[in-house]
Amino acid sequence: MTPDQFRRLGHRLVEWIADYREQCDKFPVRAVVEPGAVRAGLPPHPPEAAEDLEAALFADLERIIVPGLTHWQHPSFFAWFPGNANLASVLAELLAAGLGQNGINWQASPALTEVEEVTCDWMRQLLGLSTAWSGVIQDVASTATLVALLCARERATAYSQTRGGLQAEPAPLVVYATSEAHSSIEKAALLAGFGRLHLRTVATDDALAMRPDALAAMIADDRKAGLRPCAVVATIGSTATTAIDPLAAIVPIARAHGLWVHVDAAMAGTAMLLPECRPLWDGVEGADSIVLNPHKWLGVVGDCSLYYVRDPAHLVRVMSTNPSYLRTDADPDVHNFRDWGIPLGRRFRALKLWLHLRASGAEALRARLRRDLEHARWLAAEIDDTPHWRRIAPVRLQTVCVRHEPPGLSAEATDAHNLAWVEQLNQSGAALLTPAQVRGEWIVRISIGAEATEFRHVEALWQQMRALAESCVASPSSR
Amino acid sequence: MTPDQFRRLGHRLVEWIADYREQCDKFPVRAVVEPGAVRAGLPPHPPEAAEDLEAALFADLERIIVPGLTHWQHPSFFAWFPGNANLASVLAELLAAGLGQNGINWQASPALTEVEEVTCDWMRQLLGLSTAWSGVIQDVASTATLVALLCARERATAYSQTRGGLQAEPAPLVVYATSEAHSSIEKAALLAGFGRLHLRTVATDDALAMRPDALAAMIADDRKAGLRPCAVVATIGSTATTAIDPLAAIVPIARAHGLWVHVDAAMAGTAMLLPECRPLWDGVEGADSIVLNPHKWLGVVGDCSLYYVRDPAHLVRVMSTNPSYLRTDADPDVHNFRDWGIPLGRRFRALKLWLHLRASGAEALRARLRRDLEHARWLAAEIDDTPHWRRIAPVRLQTVCVRHEPPGLSAEATDAHNLAWVEQLNQSGAALLTPAQVRGEWIVRISIGAEATEFRHVEALWQQMRALAESCVASPSSR
Ligand SMILES: Cc1ncc(COP(=O)(O)O)c(C=O)c1O
Ligand SMILES: Cc1ncc(COP(=O)(O)O)c(C=O)c1O
Repeated sequence: MTPDQFRRLGHRLVEWIADYREQCDKFPVRAVVEPGAVRAGLPPHPPEAAEDLEAALFADLERIIVPGLTHWQHPSFFAWFPGNANLASVLAELLAAGLGQNGINWQASPALTEVEEVTCDWMRQLLGLSTAWSGVIQDVASTATLVALLCARERATAYSQTRGGLQAEPAPLVVYATSEAHSSIEKAALLAGFGRLHLRTVATDDALAMRPDALAAMIADDRKAGLRPCAVVATIGSTATTAIDPLAAIVPIARAHGLWVHVDAAMAGTAMLLPECRPLWDGVEGADSIVLNPHKWLGVVGDCSLYYVRDPAHLVRVMSTNPSYLRTDADPDVHNFRDWGIPLGRRFRALKLWLHLRASGAEALRARLRRDLEHARWLAAEIDDTPHWRRIAPVRLQTVCVRHEPPGLSAEATDAHNLAWVEQLNQSGAALLTPAQVRGEWIVRISIGAEATEFRHVEALWQQMRALAESCVASPSSR
Repeated sequence: MTPDQFRRLGHRLVEWIADYREQCDKFPVRAVVEPGAVRAGLPPHPPEAAEDLEAALFADLERIIVPGLTHWQHPSFFAWFPGNANLASVLAELLAAGLGQNGINWQASPALTEVEEVTCDWMRQLLGLSTAWSGVIQDVASTATLVALLCARERATAYSQTRGGLQAEPAPLVVYATSEAHSSIEKAALLAGFGRLHLRTVATDDALAMRPDALAAMIADDRKAGLRPCAVVATIGSTATTAIDPLAAIVPIARAHGLWVHVDAAMAGTAMLLPECRPLWDGVEGADSIVLNPHKWLGVVGDCSLYYVRDPAHLVRVMSTNPSYLRTDADPDVHNFRDWGIPLGRRFRALKLWLHLRASGAEALRARLRRDLEHARWLAAEIDDTPHWRRIAPVRLQTVCVRHEPPGLSAEATDAHNLAWVEQLNQSGAALLTPAQVRGEWIVRISIGAEATEFRHVEALWQQMRALAESCVASPSSR
């Protein structure tokens, strides 16, 4: 594509995206297509000749792509977690791509490296973390957690990877987390070679938070059995219910036994921009690593996951490679971020976090987060005041978990009832919610925090929920 | 940022990027800043109030960012490997970000998933691969290779991750590759827990290609010693010299002993768009996995790495997670690409490959690749015809490796001489080349294939190389 074609198509695309965002609330939140429909709309073979994209692209967008989207930027998107893509970060992605950089080492793009250093440090300050932390951008939290468990493994084994690997270790290493931990924790533990038998599920309390006494007891048992406790993953804001593991109690136990403490604050870490929320991760300064996702609630378009460590030299030792063609004279004086994670090639990801923070300013970001917390508290109070609606967990932040429990239904029928009304709501297109299983029961999560979500959208949601759930039950067929 | 601010800034940014690309050849190829200079130019604290980006951004770009760039899109960029960012793929990144999707499962963005399916299949066809292959987009080759070795590990151990992991295996698993394999192979083997002692360096022939007899002998020795040969990584186009491991001979050996065959064609895989190049990876159909990077020579802005496997069910079994909040009714009928790699959250990466293929068409892409091969052959012939210049390796594709060897210099002095003239050239800003060590000697790589590189740029490079290297030696001080 020539620069002139780029100018023409680019201007049209800027307008198209602005229009899309302005009209996003007109679409059904959830994609309306059947499996295979998008694929069926596309040619099965690649084009031999160049296409006229100016003619073809916008037609394809309207006809094929948009119907196949679930609209994460919709004001009534309350599913999974907020996946905000603030428009400043969208432009930053355009810029990053336009510059065409690849940060395989500092020399290959000093700006890419140093803007990332600065932006990670800005975020450290905004989060209230001490200067003991060094940050780097990873793609997603799943990857950052894998990196954390690899670092834990290598610390516990004094760098077994430089010898026989996990294959030559005298006694198995063990990892601890609760049943509420995100699935990426188990995935990382399995991929890092620990094995499912060496991943312990620590008991939780009434609020679904890790019980430090249970952790301590498990560690003691494992040591007695000749195993080697290696790492504990503490979740600050679990995916299903925003449960908060008590870091202040976990850290001393982990320290006493030499365990790595990884903090998964992927979703809820953003709340730490608010000083009033920081007690939730009290003790965090004693952890070894933290992950949190600006690509969720904060508003940076994915992927953009922050990974903070206290010992970057250890991280580099675990991750570094140094072939001749990547060495440069600058190496002693710079960061080579390829040695801070798995990928060699790196995008100019920091731009989107940098421009988002600058375009919004910290003050406005905090105000928006407080708005969302307020919405969640309002909804929680409504639920508490309404018969047959049960709140499933404390509302720590912006997620509200609920179950409609009409009298006379069995537990199983109540599960089916809740799955039914939420599916009706989702199918209506008016809003999107995600069901989840908590303590074996199906509940419904309302994850508030899309940028576009105003109070009226939360109010409307609550009305729709009540209308559907309460009428659903009225009909005898659903009993 | 409001849609209206987005429109205004977006239009200016489109123009700025087009201008940048048009004037890219005016910049010194390599960044001119000292370590720390970009960082020093930025405020140490994040802004409390929103900034007026329209006023600030373009000034920052000129003042801080552009001087800190190494210009990968420059026509005289001959360093590391081509990192082309075709402008159609740049617009696709804008679109992907504008749509703000996150493909955590099919339902979360059917279009994201199915455009990826289609585009991976288009590429499969363009590469001449059979329908036995299923593709997915990973971020980079380093990650794809880690995924491959994890899959190899789990196949060899009948899913040890579901039991005690690598920690409970009876005998160590072993991985094989040559000294020419990319550093990401060793990194992946170490991260996957094999340990450096279980990574074998297979001997190479005169052309730096894996010797199948040496592989067979090593496997036999390891088996005799009670170890378990697990995987061989065959490089199709090594980073330093584009060496090609003989897949047709490697595959039967690997098959006979149950080894996983992973093909690292990160850079050179793009050449397989040309039927005349496909004999280079003859035997590929017998491999288990392939990685190749559209974000290199092909022209898709990073990150965009294609990973093909013959057994996607195995991949999914190794990588899958299935927590309640990610399950949907559509699951039996669709691909959930989160289970095809490490990350949960996924960008709409396929858009950039899709739009690039459509904007260029296969024919024009092949013509450009042939142009680059032609340039490399011309340069190789020039080198062969010029006294005291030695070509280090066969020119299989677009990389030419050379060493200037003036008479009378020791091996060490010749190393220093080559490092000196290449640094002079790089410092001049006229072009950028990367030195590398091959068989213990420092050589200079000329990796041809930036989109903007025309014949005249290669011609000019050769003149500059000769002028610098030959005069450099003339001065007695350099002896
Ligand atoms: C042969 C080979 N394999 C792997 C890689 C790693 O590429 P990526 O940055 O995509 O991980 C490269 C690029 O340098 C390469 O040349
Ligand atoms: C607590 C928690 N951890 C980890 C993740 C994984 O996020 P990512 O998609 O960035 O890997 C999520 C998001 O779903 C999460 O809520």
